[in-house]
Amino acid sequence: MTNKRRRYAILTPGDFDDTRAKTAHGVIAYAQDETIAVVDPEHSGKRVRDVLPYLESDAPIVASVADALAFGPTSLLVGVAPPGGGLPDAWRGEIIAALEAGLEVVSGLHQTLGDDPEFARAARRGGATIWDVRIPPPVPLFSGEVYGVEARVVLTVGSDCAVGKMTVALELTKAARERGVRSQFVATGQTGIMIAGAGIAIDRVISDFASGAAERIVVDAARDADLIFVEGQGGINHPAFAAVTLALVYGAAPDALVLVHEPKRETVSGFETPLLSYRQLIRTYEGLCAGVKPARVVGVALNTRALDEAAARAALERAREETGLPADDVVRFGALALFDAMAPAFAAKTQALRASG
Amino acid sequence: MTNKRRRYAILTPGDFDDTRAKTAHGVIAYAQDETIAVVDPEHSGKRVRDVLPYLESDAPIVASVADALAFGPTSLLVGVAPPGGGLPDAWRGEIIAALEAGLEVVSGLHQTLGDDPEFARAARRGGATIWDVRIPPPVPLFSGEVYGVEARVVLTVGSDCAVGKMTVALELTKAARERGVRSQFVATGQTGIMIAGAGIAIDRVISDFASGAAERIVVDAARDADLIFVEGQGGINHPAFAAVTLALVYGAAPDALVLVHEPKRETVSGFETPLLSYRQLIRTYEGLCAGVKPARVVGVALNTRALDEAAARAALERAREETGLPADDVVRFGALALFDAMAPAFAAKTQALRASG
Repeated sequence: MTNKRRRYAILTPGDFDDTRAKTAHGVIAYAQDETIAVVDPEHSGKRVRDVLPYLESDAPIVASVADALAFGPTSLLVGVAPPGGGLPDAWRGEIIAALEAGLEVVSGLHQTLGDDPEFARAARRGGATIWDVRIPPPVPLFSGEVYGVEARVVLTVGSDCAVGKMTVALELTKAARERGVRSQFVATGQTGIMIAGAGIAIDRVISDFASGAAERIVVDAARDADLIFVEGQGGINHPAFAAVTLALVYGAAPDALVLVHEPKRETVSGFETPLLSYRQLIRTYEGLCAGVKPARVVGVALNTRALDEAAARAALERAREETGLPADDVVRFGALALFDAMAPAFAAKTQALRASG
Repeated sequence: MTNKRRRYAILTPGDFDDTRAKTAHGVIAYAQDETIAVVDPEHSGKRVRDVLPYLESDAPIVASVADALAFGPTSLLVGVAPPGGGLPDAWRGEIIAALEAGLEVVSGLHQTLGDDPEFARAARRGGATIWDVRIPPPVPLFSGEVYGVEARVVLTVGSDCAVGKMTVALELTKAARERGVRSQFVATGQTGIMIAGAGIAIDRVISDFASGAAERIVVDAARDADLIFVEGQGGINHPAFAAVTLALVYGAAPDALVLVHEPKRETVSGFETPLLSYRQLIRTYEGLCAGVKPARVVGVALNTRALDEAAARAALERAREETGLPADDVVRFGALALFDAMAPAFAAKTQALRASG
């Protein structure tokens, strides 16, 4: 994470109460950057906690970027991920208004805002910059430098995409800090990058360089931390996204893995491929690590939001029985118990394999 | 493969007798395109077979592109892969001469020749085109369309990079054709693409799209074939390149795997990571396939070029004993025996897993 705190106005036209605004919700809940206003004409006049009462922080909701300027933002964050990742035409005016007012515009859309001539002109007029967080910087090939990192590295791995790997890494980072451990979250996807203010979207890196990109951000984070939680991506039997998963498993070179799963999910996102069982997942992830740099799964983090509390507790008990590992829902029940249960396993570094010959 | 045959002049300044010219050697040995001259001032006056007596085809070696024009080339192929993938300044004049003479220039360098303003001007003057084979076309995300392909798909997988996965796929394609099977080679790296005249360099695709790219080229090849041999990449425990390997394992959705290995190699290219044993390799590759679309390793292809014949035969016998599978060196002993031994396993399609629920 960088040290410079942004003051965000977050643009979510019409969607602030929808899961399409999950980037906005994640940034408000977790970012060290401050959210000073939300721009959403459909909810203007309310406050953030009127819509999302579970959040700790609050801010006004206003109708336009012009209205948000009164609160002194440094940056406008595009807080909605529309299907397809393109930018709706209706939002262009607000982005231009922000750039002309000198605000940094931060976007995780697939569509690169910095390449848009109209936005470029507005940015020049306002002396503003555009940060397309999904566009990776140039990175070198994987070199093995990460094997020399002294911090212990923990990677969240999943049964599938979008089960909560980022949230678990964030919550465990917070728990570690509460326990007095110098801890860093390493972002590997666009929402995580907006929250952390740094990171690389591994899925946008040329595949030859994907594990090199993961290595780079872990090495950078290790300068300021003794314990690092890396946001995992995808799932190891996801036919479309497992290559990104494996780039992280080898590139981040973790010392320990935390398995993240959402009970009741039966197939990987977008396909009929059945999810692997806990045992299959553990065997597969640990088996791959065993050939390069050994790492064990040391705990299970379940996302039980779709279950009532009794069902959630039953699912956790089943996970503990099937894996012999500590298991918890770090959002529902807090992350300290799971962190404490896994902490002994976070104390040791593992070594990359060296040829004996 | 396309139907239009090129007539290549191949540029290998000073290196035609060196392994750095492996792209040139591969194209002369395997491409359906014809090589009508090699441009290499250090070897000019000789013929290709004076330098590489094991090749079947022959061509004159000349001192310059100007001299090569007498033989009527359609294209100039950059036949050397310099360390780092950049273009030596000394070669620029020859490339400009080719473009001004109207020759297509074909390059597998990391450096994109089409982006070079001087080359672009020369191409306009000559009415010529530049094909940077490493630059991938836009590809969609993996969709599962490959699961509907009727052709049987065979993927070569390896213990490491550069053990011979492309050569094995090419030789098995030839063997299948000799046996009367409609067979296609699918190229996934730059030399393979030059040989086949089509394909995508998977290592240059954005990682989110890498398995989609593999799916695309398999679906395309399946239109004209009953049996497809896909060139594998990397190795499953290579810390830098395994993500590309896995993108092919899931994206090509093979029905069967052929394991390629070079005996005496002990660590993966560039690292001290020990190679996996035959059994570990088979368990890992088959284990990953089992979670998505089952595929078995059905034979072992060894690259025994570093061994004398007795040692080669001993290595093959050991591979047969350790794996219980047919094993051969398809270059040293021909590919028909291994093809015939594996052919029954190539007769069946496997099915992608479907959720039972």
